[in-house]
Amino acid sequence: MSIDDRIFADVCDHARKAAMLQTIADTLEWDERTGMPSAAGEYRAQQVSTLRAQVHRLRTDAKYGEQLATLSEQAAALPPHGDHAATIRELNVDFRRDSKLPEDLVQRLSLATVRGQQSWDAARKADDYRQFKPALAEILALKKEQGDRYREGSDATLYESLLDEFEPGGREAKLAEVFQELRSELVPMIEAIGRSPNQPDLQCVRGPFDLDRQRAFSHQVCESIGFDFSRGRLDETSHPFCTTLGPDDIRILTRYESTWLPGGLYGSMHEAGHGIYEQGLRADWFGLPPGSYASLSVHESQSRLWENQVGRSRAFWQWLLPQATEVLDSSLEGVSADEFYFATNAVGPSLIRVEADEATYNLHIIIRFDLERQLIAGDLSVDQLPEAWNARYESDLGIRPTSDADGVLQDVHWSAGLFGYFPTYTLGNLIAAQLFATVQAAMPDLEHQIATGEFGPLCHWLRKNVHEPGKCYRTPQLVQKVTGNDLSAAPLISYLKDKLSSLYQF
Amino acid sequence: MSIDDRIFADVCDHARKAAMLQTIADTLEWDERTGMPSAAGEYRAQQVSTLRAQVHRLRTDAKYGEQLATLSEQAAALPPHGDHAATIRELNVDFRRDSKLPEDLVQRLSLATVRGQQSWDAARKADDYRQFKPALAEILALKKEQGDRYREGSDATLYESLLDEFEPGGREAKLAEVFQELRSELVPMIEAIGRSPNQPDLQCVRGPFDLDRQRAFSHQVCESIGFDFSRGRLDETSHPFCTTLGPDDIRILTRYESTWLPGGLYGSMHEAGHGIYEQGLRADWFGLPPGSYASLSVHESQSRLWENQVGRSRAFWQWLLPQATEVLDSSLEGVSADEFYFATNAVGPSLIRVEADEATYNLHIIIRFDLERQLIAGDLSVDQLPEAWNARYESDLGIRPTSDADGVLQDVHWSAGLFGYFPTYTLGNLIAAQLFATVQAAMPDLEHQIATGEFGPLCHWLRKNVHEPGKCYRTPQLVQKVTGNDLSAAPLISYLKDKLSSLYQF
Repeated sequence: MSIDDRIFADVCDHARKAAMLQTIADTLEWDERTGMPSAAGEYRAQQVSTLRAQVHRLRTDAKYGEQLATLSEQAAALPPHGDHAATIRELNVDFRRDSKLPEDLVQRLSLATVRGQQSWDAARKADDYRQFKPALAEILALKKEQGDRYREGSDATLYESLLDEFEPGGREAKLAEVFQELRSELVPMIEAIGRSPNQPDLQCVRGPFDLDRQRAFSHQVCESIGFDFSRGRLDETSHPFCTTLGPDDIRILTRYESTWLPGGLYGSMHEAGHGIYEQGLRADWFGLPPGSYASLSVHESQSRLWENQVGRSRAFWQWLLPQATEVLDSSLEGVSADEFYFATNAVGPSLIRVEADEATYNLHIIIRFDLERQLIAGDLSVDQLPEAWNARYESDLGIRPTSDADGVLQDVHWSAGLFGYFPTYTLGNLIAAQLFATVQAAMPDLEHQIATGEFGPLCHWLRKNVHEPGKCYRTPQLVQKVTGNDLSAAPLISYLKDKLSSLYQF
Repeated sequence: MSIDDRIFADVCDHARKAAMLQTIADTLEWDERTGMPSAAGEYRAQQVSTLRAQVHRLRTDAKYGEQLATLSEQAAALPPHGDHAATIRELNVDFRRDSKLPEDLVQRLSLATVRGQQSWDAARKADDYRQFKPALAEILALKKEQGDRYREGSDATLYESLLDEFEPGGREAKLAEVFQELRSELVPMIEAIGRSPNQPDLQCVRGPFDLDRQRAFSHQVCESIGFDFSRGRLDETSHPFCTTLGPDDIRILTRYESTWLPGGLYGSMHEAGHGIYEQGLRADWFGLPPGSYASLSVHESQSRLWENQVGRSRAFWQWLLPQATEVLDSSLEGVSADEFYFATNAVGPSLIRVEADEATYNLHIIIRFDLERQLIAGDLSVDQLPEAWNARYESDLGIRPTSDADGVLQDVHWSAGLFGYFPTYTLGNLIAAQLFATVQAAMPDLEHQIATGEFGPLCHWLRKNVHEPGKCYRTPQLVQKVTGNDLSAAPLISYLKDKLSSLYQF
């Protein structure tokens, strides 16, 4: 028995149409976050909400669901990771989940999160959590309603039912366990680093550096590592992100600070890593599972790999220093690549997640993971949130935010309704380390290539092994297939220990 | 008999929904013209085409048409220029016209014009008309098909059926007559100016001026004359325009040249004039005739009035000179306001319409008007167009373009399917002069206000008299109501004669 080609084509057309409307909504949101006039927010929220409602109607269309059910029966004999089987399987999963939400809830969520992001942006600028609190309370109530709908007839916890959208099949207890394991290794490592007499000199990354020169520098670095500017662009926003507005329109956004070079440089490389993944997906399957990213954690592994495993390596600075001297500041001529290497691997407690070093970063994630589980479970109210946030930073990292903007208001996620999203960051770090260990073994010349600015072979390896399969494999299967092992914390821990113990001599 | 409120509300909701989808398409087009990645054009064309098809379906919905027909019968006793009567009348006219086009023609036109603009942009950059020719031929054929549909059952010429979309009720022969009348006054005036020994020194506007300073300067000028940046923004593009993406999101676009200050300054003021009109429309009627501009010619009158009647006046330079010295270039301190006044009123033949002076500008329009009528009538082929263009510039203005980019490729209009649009520019000039003569009589203090940077009263007068009525009046009725006279060429001619004869002493 084989699948009905006509039905398959119908289903693909239908899914592509929904994807196109989604890219239009995403274009409006990109615009909203790159300079839309301040008074335009209310109408923009209505526009985005209208489009999202159209997308939801298409994705939950009854006839489409019937066609998917028919195809599912026919697909049993297909190779499970082939394009056809994956298309049918993943569209089916999406249809079943989406169909659990009534249209009015989708509309209310859409409006609340568009307004929530506007409210967050204003509150962050005003450094005043109270301005954002009512919007957050509304979003939280709607997300609980959404989670309750999702988990009807399953044994998932309320939190898991939300997590599932970002990390399919992820289990709350399992995550808590892995995070605890990682933490138990990181805490003594960070303490040892704090005690080390060997500390980096940060002068070389503090500048100050002219913002226009930083822009040119980031553009050049992103292009060098493989981001294609004929199919993308690099802009600025308050919270960096990457968005896909079409098969040939991948946009990355970063932010620059005159006195902190790593902010703009690694922010750009991070988003370029996301962008290179999106540009490496198969365009002829755009809008369908084989042309979509595998999961958010795999997405994050790509951004982290370029940012950290590549961008924070000694070899990378051997290549980058002459460019930095030329484009950024000629006075850098006196600085060595090793000084930059150490300065960009400075480890220590800090308040802002997106600026955190590789070692402390996961502690930021664990705080958010714990707090959002408490919010969803109802064990923590939005009134208590800022104090709980500050208390956790004090207890876990030893520093206490003195402002909302540097504390609870620093991330866009909750204002956009993204509960269950944060853990994918740490999963991404784990996968990046495991992938990089694999590619290092496969390409003995890799370090030399990086040191000479030859990023093509690494990019090609990632394309073939990670990008081109798209969503034909779920995260655990993809990791197993590419690395030969199940996902594990060991590669990240050993990567960090090797690098940091040599720099800090512990 | 009165109208049925429920039906009226239904019709308004329906029209507003179509308007919202249109603003979404316009947002995508704004993005396309402000930096979309070069490879993204094909998918963007599909997105815009999908939205336009949705708009067309709404605007030609059978039930909506029936409701409009019912309301039209009920509306006979309403005051004709009231919000309700105007809404019903104008939506009806639009419905009847839109219903004449089959959906597939709308789709083909949409795709052809999106691709046409991409092709035009590339051809213009490459200075090669041949790259654009196939796209133009396709658009022209589709426009003829569209015109033939529109004029079924009417006595309109093919050209008039297209003109009607931009200037409702405009007659080809009448336009040709008015243009000829204007031309007969302008030609001897321009000759007299050419013979005058009194010529301006252009050094003060040639700079060169730093582009970033020009950006800041234009921003400041637009804000001063009344453009509200909380409800709009100013960007750059190859062909300046103004677009309305929502009731509080009006975007204007200009371009700067380092060695020609009037290009960026008056380009910005021109678009700001359009933007101030859009910002002055009643937001509570957004998407409906009472909250829409009256016609393109009235729109152009607002841009021209700020650009020319205000921006090219002696009083304006008395106010602007200190700002120019501060923001633009401190070395301007030695230049007098009178020198700027004369330099920015330099008159002489030139190749580029958007940079032309007030006197020669209409000759540019007449050339386009004549050529597009010939193209539509089939008396001129796309092969012959560049030579015909160059020949007319040589015969009418005495100069011949040496490149396509400075000739036939300079305007975006035809690539966007805008045949019948150009004449509205000259109509706008006529209306601007007539309105300004009226406001001068009504506000004897106007010149002093301009000289002291007090633009509020003029802005307020335009809001009350021109903006707030929206489309409740057609162009001829609005002109009659506001100025007390029918539209006439006399105010423009006497305005130009007064100003230029005093500067050039003829």
